[in-house]
Formats: sequence, C-alpha cells, structure tokens
Amino acid sequence: MTGRAIAYLSGGVGGAKLALGLSRMLPAEDLCIIANTGDDFDHLGLRICPDIDTLVYTLSGKANLEQGWGRAGETDSFMTAMRELGGPDWFFLGDHDLAMHVERTRRLNAGVRLTDVTDHLATALGVGPRILPMTDEAAPTIIETTEGALAFQDYFVRLRAAPTVTGFILHGGAPVAPTAEVMAALDAPEMVIIGPSNPFISIDPILDLPGIRDRLRVLKQAGTPVVAVSPIVGGDAIKGPTAKMFRELGETPSVGAIAARYRDVVSHLVIDDVDSGDAARIAGSGIRVAVTATVMRSIEDRIALARTILGGA
Amino acid sequence: MTGRAIAYLSGGVGGAKLALGLSRMLPAEDLCIIANTGDDFDHLGLRICPDIDTLVYTLSGKANLEQGWGRAGETDSFMTAMRELGGPDWFFLGDHDLAMHVERTRRLNAGVRLTDVTDHLATALGVGPRILPMTDEAAPTIIETTEGALAFQDYFVRLRAAPTVTGFILHGGAPVAPTAEVMAALDAPEMVIIGPSNPFISIDPILDLPGIRDRLRVLKQAGTPVVAVSPIVGGDAIKGPTAKMFRELGETPSVGAIAARYRDVVSHLVIDDVDSGDAARIAGSGIRVAVTATVMRSIEDRIALARTILGGA
Repeated sequence: MTGRAIAYLSGGVGGAKLALGLSRMLPAEDLCIIANTGDDFDHLGLRICPDIDTLVYTLSGKANLEQGWGRAGETDSFMTAMRELGGPDWFFLGDHDLAMHVERTRRLNAGVRLTDVTDHLATALGVGPRILPMTDEAAPTIIETTEGALAFQDYFVRLRAAPTVTGFILHGGAPVAPTAEVMAALDAPEMVIIGPSNPFISIDPILDLPGIRDRLRVLKQAGTPVVAVSPIVGGDAIKGPTAKMFRELGETPSVGAIAARYRDVVSHLVIDDVDSGDAARIAGSGIRVAVTATVMRSIEDRIALARTILGGA
Repeated sequence: MTGRAIAYLSGGVGGAKLALGLSRMLPAEDLCIIANTGDDFDHLGLRICPDIDTLVYTLSGKANLEQGWGRAGETDSFMTAMRELGGPDWFFLGDHDLAMHVERTRRLNAGVRLTDVTDHLATALGVGPRILPMTDEAAPTIIETTEGALAFQDYFVRLRAAPTVTGFILHGGAPVAPTAEVMAALDAPEMVIIGPSNPFISIDPILDLPGIRDRLRVLKQAGTPVVAVSPIVGGDAIKGPTAKMFRELGETPSVGAIAARYRDVVSHLVIDDVDSGDAARIAGSGIRVAVTATVMRSIEDRIALARTILGGA
C-alpha cells in the first residue's frame, strides 16, 4: 500500500455499504479491506464465505442492494430443484451465487489459500480494492445461547437469530493466525477504519486474532487515526441482531456502549446525528467524536459518509 | 421382482427413450432398469452420473426431450456466473440439474451407497421403476484413442468424440463388482432387454462386470428371452458415436455387427424396418430377429417399440 493507505475492517451488509463509499473516494490500491470470516461455513460440500461474498458483490456492482446479500437478478432454479429432491433448503443459494461457492471450493480443495482464491474471484468480477480474509484458517464463530452453543449460520439463518445470546466463542475456540497480508495492511496505514458492522460477530473476530488489537493500540498511540463507525443509531441497529445482542448481554444498545467496546483501540467514533446528545460524554472518555448522517440508503449516502471519515480524521 | 419381471440394461439417451416406453407398458414393480455408470465422473467436486440422470429425468417427465439430456425448462445462471469467474465451463450444468449432483454428492459423502442415493433421488422425482446403478464402485470407462487414453467425458464432451478410437478400458481397468440388487434383478427375470444404447461404452460396461455375461448366457440357455434392440439403423446411429466407433475399430456399422457383438448373450435382436434385408442372415446365425420401427421420435413410438418387444418374445 502506498500514499493514502486505508485499512478497513468489515463484516457483511453494513460494512460493505461503507466499503463501496470508500472505494469511490480512493484509488483501488489505497484501500485494503479486511473481512470477517467467522461466518464462513461448509454447506452441501461447499465453502461459503458470506461476508467476503457480500463485499465482492457490492464492490463489483452485482449486489442485491435491497436485500443486502446475494446478487441482483438472481434466479432460484437450484433451490427449487433441491426442494423437489428433499435436500437441505434452509440456506438460500442463488444460481449465480452457487458458481462463487463451487469455484471457491474447487480452488481451496486444490490447495490454494483463501486469500489467493478471494483475490482471483474478486478480480474476475472487476473488484478494485483488495479484499483480504482475516485468516486463511477456519475460524468459526460459535454463538452461545440459552438453547446451547450454535454454529453461526444455525443461529443466524436457520433460527433467524431468535435464541437468546449469552456469549460468543470466536475462532472455534482455538488459536487462529491472521494472514501475513492482513498484518502488512496494518503495518503502517494512514488510517484504520472499523465499519458499521456488528461488534460481537463481525469486528471482534478480526480484533481478537493474535496481534491485531495490539497493532491497533500501537497505531493509535502513534497518532494514526483508528476510526470506528457506530452500527448503533438511535439505540437500534440498522440491520441484524446487534441491538438484540447488547440487550441479551445486559447492556443498553447505544453509541456509548459502542464507544466502551472499542475504547482500547479507536481514536475516533463516528455517530449519527440522532445520537448527537451522547457526543460530549463519549468525547469525555477520550475518544474524538464525529457527528454526521451515518444511515446509508443511497450510493450518495455511502460516498458522503466515506468522505466525512476520510476528511475528518 | 414379481410376475412379469423385466430387467432392462440401459445407457443414456437412446436407452432412456425405450425405458419410458417400457414404463408405460409395465407396472412399476415389474421393471428394473440397470444403468451404465461408466460415464460417471467427478467435476467441480460433484459426482455426476449422466446415464442415471437421463433415466431419472426421462422417467419423471422432466427431461429435455429434444436435447436428449438435461431437464426441460432448464436455466443457465450458474454457467453464466462460472464463466465470469474464469471457472471450468466445458461441461454444461443447468441450475436445476445442479441440485441433483449436489444432493447426490452430499449423500455419497455421508457414506450412502449410490444404489440407495439413486433410489432416494428417483423416488423424490416420482419415478416408478427402480433404476439400479450397475455398481456402487467407481467404474470409469477410459477411451483409448490415437491421441492417447482419455477419460470418458474428456473424450465425449470436451473433445466432442472427435479423436479416433482404438479401444476401451472398462471399469478403470480394475475389477469392479455389480451390486447385489443388480444380480438379484437378473436372478430369474421373465425377460432381459438390452436397450438401443452404444454397445461399446453403454452396454459392455454392464455386461463385462463379473458374472453378468455368464448370467445372461445361463438365462438364454434356459429359455429366458434376452432381447437386444439395435442402436444401429440403416448403417448409422440415431445419436452419438456408435457408428463412428465401429468404423474406427475396422468394422462396418450394421445390425449384423450388433448381432455379432451380442451373439453370446442374446436370444433375440430387434432391428429396424430399413434393415430387414439383414434379417435372414442374422437369423441364420441362431438369433431370432424381430423387424419393426425402432426409431423413437414420439412417445407413441416409444410405447409401440416397448409393446413389440414385450409381446414378441
């Protein structure tokens, strides 16, 4: 990375929205996206990487923007036929999307690293910025609930995030290394940005890899802006179970709670206009606060938020 | 099998046409189809069984009858996306059809036998007669050509059957057992029918399994009709490389050549009206000959041929 190098930590839908905005503001070589792989899983013999795919589809202009995941103009012949055959149909796989999983799995099974497979697939679809899986190893997030420990997609898709969460086991409970590419992207960036993704299941899996939190602390202490965008707006999440998880874990979902979670690693927090009342208290805790419109409905919203972040820190 | 039990040996397209005719003439429990698996192969991590699938789609009314293989109303989103990703696109996989391969592979990888997987998939699609893979083991047909030995689908699909054939290695050159179900179907059938399939690459792989030729010889000697339908009509094949293979191996494709190949196992040969001039010579060699319309364009043609076979022997 050269010049205005930005390392951007991202989960899926919300993270991808800002990734798109950042990609419109920066030369491709100056943006490096570090993607959560804690949601990745094997299904029907295929390796599925939901957050990477959402980023690839979003940045290649192929995403279904209304739905947030999957591809625009997707067809469902495979799922229809799968149901006829009595096969598992709880996880939707569109016909175009299937090619991504089949080709990824084929390359992984041939011994190629997920980092290189992702480079190939993203480049094939015309994605400019590099999308780096946080690790090349399996690092499954396990959701601890009052109904027991659940594999992430069992919790998230099959059970529609209904069970009450009591905790998280990241990286399958075993030590997992970030890639050399991820560490290189965090070596001397001009800025680190943490996307408006779920802190528990999208960002913590990245931060809790060995060396990452320490790296961000050192960068912050050296004056490199480490900017988080709050996924909580007006006490709720734009999408997904972030606010529900806060409540189930006994915390009130708020920008203050986000600030508290990220206090050790971030220098700046971007919060929405509706939360401006909390700005002073957060600033008092030592985090610089930017107040702006953070809800990204249009492409213009995405670019405007990216511009604010890049210009303001 | 009970009553009018028929064991029917079949390859893909031509064999499936007659299978459909037979299925309209017989109670489902009286027809047992033994399918060639020599064309089966692994592609993109999926186990693909072309002849079984053609039989399943044909008997379930889902086949693309004009094309001969694949499903009617098929879509190609997967292949379109695969090409975008730079993945292998030489073997067409329709979106609906993919579900068959994915679900088959999933069940096989869980340790289920191909026989039982096929039962499940065929039953799910409403197929009545039992379709038995000739073996549960891998039994790949290798095509020896002047360009070297080729995996079947490399020869047949990727190279469009263009290379000059010099021989065949059946069952990957290793001993492979027919299933107990196949042997049971041939234990005491009322009749054995050999479909109008390619003798080299569709029927020989079945006949050359240990015990099958002997079994047919014994049945024939005991007076059980063993009826083959000639895939050669007027010196050519209706579809596929059968006639080309005869010529490349130094034989003239003719109903006489078919009779010679099957002499040891069949009691009856069904030939087309256009070949009636060859009937006397074949009959002179000890095979009973039925002359009828064998080209199956319509469903009525399929039923008429099935009726002739079942009534005439």
